Amino acid sequence: LSDPKPIAKSTNWSAVETEEVLPGVHRQTMHATNQSVVRYLYAPGSVFPIHAHPEEQVTLVLSGTIVFEIDGSEHRLTAGGVIAIPSNVPHGARVEGTEAVESFNILSPRRAADPVVAIERRPV
Amino acid sequence: LSDPKPIAKSTNWSAVETEEVLPGVHRQTMHATNQSVVRYLYAPGSVFPIHAHPEEQVTLVLSGTIVFEIDGSEHRLTAGGVIAIPSNVPHGARVEGTEAVESFNILSPRRAADPVVAIERRPV
Repeated sequence: LSDPKPIAKSTNWSAVETEEVLPGVHRQTMHATNQSVVRYLYAPGSVFPIHAHPEEQVTLVLSGTIVFEIDGSEHRLTAGGVIAIPSNVPHGARVEGTEAVESFNILSPRRAADPVVAIERRPV
Repeated sequence: LSDPKPIAKSTNWSAVETEEVLPGVHRQTMHATNQSVVRYLYAPGSVFPIHAHPEEQVTLVLSGTIVFEIDGSEHRLTAGGVIAIPSNVPHGARVEGTEAVESFNILSPRRAADPVVAIERRPV
């Protein structure tokens, strides 16, 4: 038997379940074949502790100000900001200021299982 | 010699060159290791003809209304819309209505060379 014909699938974030993965950090996840796309909403004051994962991560910031800490360096991103974090590089992030942050994380290859491997629990 | 330590890189779309790839279709492209991220701005009335490429494509729509045609089926996406188009599946798109469309296309694996292989030139 031949493989089934691949098909395109469309949806809207409004139809995707939201999980609060950390206090004030809300996440929605979709998976394609080669990549996973995660939409994040970070409340003001929220923090994502330093962690790492095998997937390369590209983050696209839509609104607010978010500061990534990577290897002791800070990257301050606002609307239109983009950061590429290589595979297995530890990183964390915190919201700066009073505006919520909306961003997309694209993980490639597709996230396989447990979504985050925390390696350090201190706030960044 | 050991490989250099991978580093994270950040930038902003405002620092990325824009190309008009088709009338009214403006594109900015960034490449990571496993994926390419393309920001599109489509003017009202603009059309991207049917084409295909080996990379899987995920499109995230930020504003406006865009209609994708894939295998004779239409997918109408507005803000928050997401579509995943498998590798090598022919697809095209057109703006509907009077609002410009902003979207991100994420291509995985990373786009290697010539960005689009057009296989059909009729408008969709």
